[in-house]
Amino acid sequence: MAEYTIPTTAIVSYTEHDWRYERVLCREPGPGELLIRMLATGICHTDLANVGEIAPRILGHEGAGRVLRKGPDCKIDVNVGDPVLLSFAHCKECYMCLTGHPAHCVDSTTLTIRGQDPNFALADEDAQDPRLEDDGQGRRRVIKASYFGHSSFSAIALVRESSVVNAKDLVANDEELTMFAPLGCGIQTGACAVVNVIKPSPEDSVGVFGLGGVGLSAIMAAKALGVREIIAVDILPNRLSLASSLGATHTINSKDMSKDELIRAIRSLPPFQRGKSGPSGPSAIVDTTAVPSLIQAALAAVRKMGRVVQLANKGPGSSLSVGLPEHMASGVHLSGTIQGDADPAKSIPLLIKWYREGKLPLERLEKTFAVEDFDRAREEMHSGVTIKPVLLWPQ
Amino acid sequence: MAEYTIPTTAIVSYTEHDWRYERVLCREPGPGELLIRMLATGICHTDLANVGEIAPRILGHEGAGRVLRKGPDCKIDVNVGDPVLLSFAHCKECYMCLTGHPAHCVDSTTLTIRGQDPNFALADEDAQDPRLEDDGQGRRRVIKASYFGHSSFSAIALVRESSVVNAKDLVANDEELTMFAPLGCGIQTGACAVVNVIKPSPEDSVGVFGLGGVGLSAIMAAKALGVREIIAVDILPNRLSLASSLGATHTINSKDMSKDELIRAIRSLPPFQRGKSGPSGPSAIVDTTAVPSLIQAALAAVRKMGRVVQLANKGPGSSLSVGLPEHMASGVHLSGTIQGDADPAKSIPLLIKWYREGKLPLERLEKTFAVEDFDRAREEMHSGVTIKPVLLWPQ
Repeated sequence: MAEYTIPTTAIVSYTEHDWRYERVLCREPGPGELLIRMLATGICHTDLANVGEIAPRILGHEGAGRVLRKGPDCKIDVNVGDPVLLSFAHCKECYMCLTGHPAHCVDSTTLTIRGQDPNFALADEDAQDPRLEDDGQGRRRVIKASYFGHSSFSAIALVRESSVVNAKDLVANDEELTMFAPLGCGIQTGACAVVNVIKPSPEDSVGVFGLGGVGLSAIMAAKALGVREIIAVDILPNRLSLASSLGATHTINSKDMSKDELIRAIRSLPPFQRGKSGPSGPSAIVDTTAVPSLIQAALAAVRKMGRVVQLANKGPGSSLSVGLPEHMASGVHLSGTIQGDADPAKSIPLLIKWYREGKLPLERLEKTFAVEDFDRAREEMHSGVTIKPVLLWPQ
Repeated sequence: MAEYTIPTTAIVSYTEHDWRYERVLCREPGPGELLIRMLATGICHTDLANVGEIAPRILGHEGAGRVLRKGPDCKIDVNVGDPVLLSFAHCKECYMCLTGHPAHCVDSTTLTIRGQDPNFALADEDAQDPRLEDDGQGRRRVIKASYFGHSSFSAIALVRESSVVNAKDLVANDEELTMFAPLGCGIQTGACAVVNVIKPSPEDSVGVFGLGGVGLSAIMAAKALGVREIIAVDILPNRLSLASSLGATHTINSKDMSKDELIRAIRSLPPFQRGKSGPSGPSAIVDTTAVPSLIQAALAAVRKMGRVVQLANKGPGSSLSVGLPEHMASGVHLSGTIQGDADPAKSIPLLIKWYREGKLPLERLEKTFAVEDFDRAREEMHSGVTIKPVLLWPQ
């Protein structure tokens, strides 16, 4: 039985909407685990959608901090005090991990979205509380964690070593470390969907549906790779403006458009009207919305033999109807991807390099909040006022 | 108005089931057109499905013959008497044609499946026949042709030059020319789905659903490329046996299997049970069946980040439901393709090279029939007794 001995604070999610900032106790790190004193944690839409029946739970899967303690048998090259960036856990042993595709680890779902190890317990106990369970150490409210291998909505996080990227040689100070907190999921997912899945040449054109942190990162990556035509689609004027300033060459507000109107709007953009000999439509579209009718619009709007990248979904049971004659005739590839097929050990250094070259102006996407203001942070993300909220932990 | 001056014979399709071998008149070749005296025409499943409202019509889109006459302004390098193999028409001017992807020509549908130029008329006319229309030259029954640019179910075919591959340097005699008649569609489609779309390495494994001419050609191509594991799935024992002898390393009879049973049967094949570090499932599956539940099985059975090639469909309105969480997690690519993205000018010489090297034993797939026996030929193809029927034209 775990002994919950390490006092800290965390955001505990009881339902999708009921999040509470509470005093908790963390267990000691086991083999291959580390304790990380968190500096900052990004909030991602995935956090809003993944409480479900796994509750109470600590979410959070984009974070930055410093190594507080190493458990036994850690193979990772980090020392106590090193700055680290957190990304998704993976097994490091399967065919996908061993061939450079840890995002598609065969144990991915168990180690990320379904992560629910009983790593924490509520610190404030009341033996009369009917929610409490006897864990062998007394009556305790156990909290599920290990979400993406870290559950970094906690001032001290218990982290699997596969989630850790040592940032010792990558960051200059805590300000930078805070800025890079969201790299390990949202930013990486959008950017790597372009870098690894689309692999565009400058002559290609790339469309992006949905301009949250993921979509805007896709746009910055396309721009960084020199793609000449970048089409941004969203329903919020402020996000479309931001996309333009980050590299989009064309913007489309699809708010009042039918599916067919959106397809026509994309295919009639001036650069694509190249007459009979030229291509019609972008060579690839990244969909970040997971709205089936928008993915269908992407399949129809992309040019022949183009690619539609599906990197998000609306949870169990959501499905897409693909017309078989149309899909065959189009020659299009519908490519599913997790985290843009990123290997964080490679993608995070690349993204930091781009930041230093001015190609990934993270400061234009991020807004920091004290951790106690998590409710306002997620409201601003949900409404689109803030692209990427980053929670700051008390130090 | 066309003058129908060239007497010949053709199989005229009035409905899906009502085909008649009749005396017809062909018009003179116009610019960029040739008259071909046909030697042999393969029957493809596409011929069985594409009468619809375009009737009466001459089908046939895999053929071999010799140049009888050239129309004006032909740019193709062929002379009267040269042996030719016929494939699909394409515009030669669009972005797809100019970049080596003529199968995905922007005018593909119009030039192939929808081809319906009034190139022929019935020779045996009866002015009282209520079906007859006045074409300006008198009352005639006009027959629609130009299917795939040739409609080669005709002893003399009127062919667009883009459908023609000069076989002068490729074939030794009429026996070979007959053997190669089906290369331009069915054989090419299956083989090039592997060569161009999957592009497997020997370490990959390839599954093929449906073992008609297209599926067996995919198996032969995988074998020719040295793929070590080739999984053949069908419901007919004779086709599974043939697949084994052509290179399949594993066969699965899916006749009485549910979708889940088929997925398990594929994923539990001995070579794929490589423990945690090895892949599970084939790296790619070619579906030739167009049955939605089988394509779903392919998406679930293929390994992570694998590819499912969709090269067939059941006509307008047929669709596939794709689970979005599953597709995202799988990292799989669902790739539509026409003709396996073949460029006949390259694929036909490659296929003939493979034939000469013993890697494409066409004689094991084909069975010749006198043209008058077209009904028996298509019945044998439909039932699976004959893989690839080839009709021989009287010389």
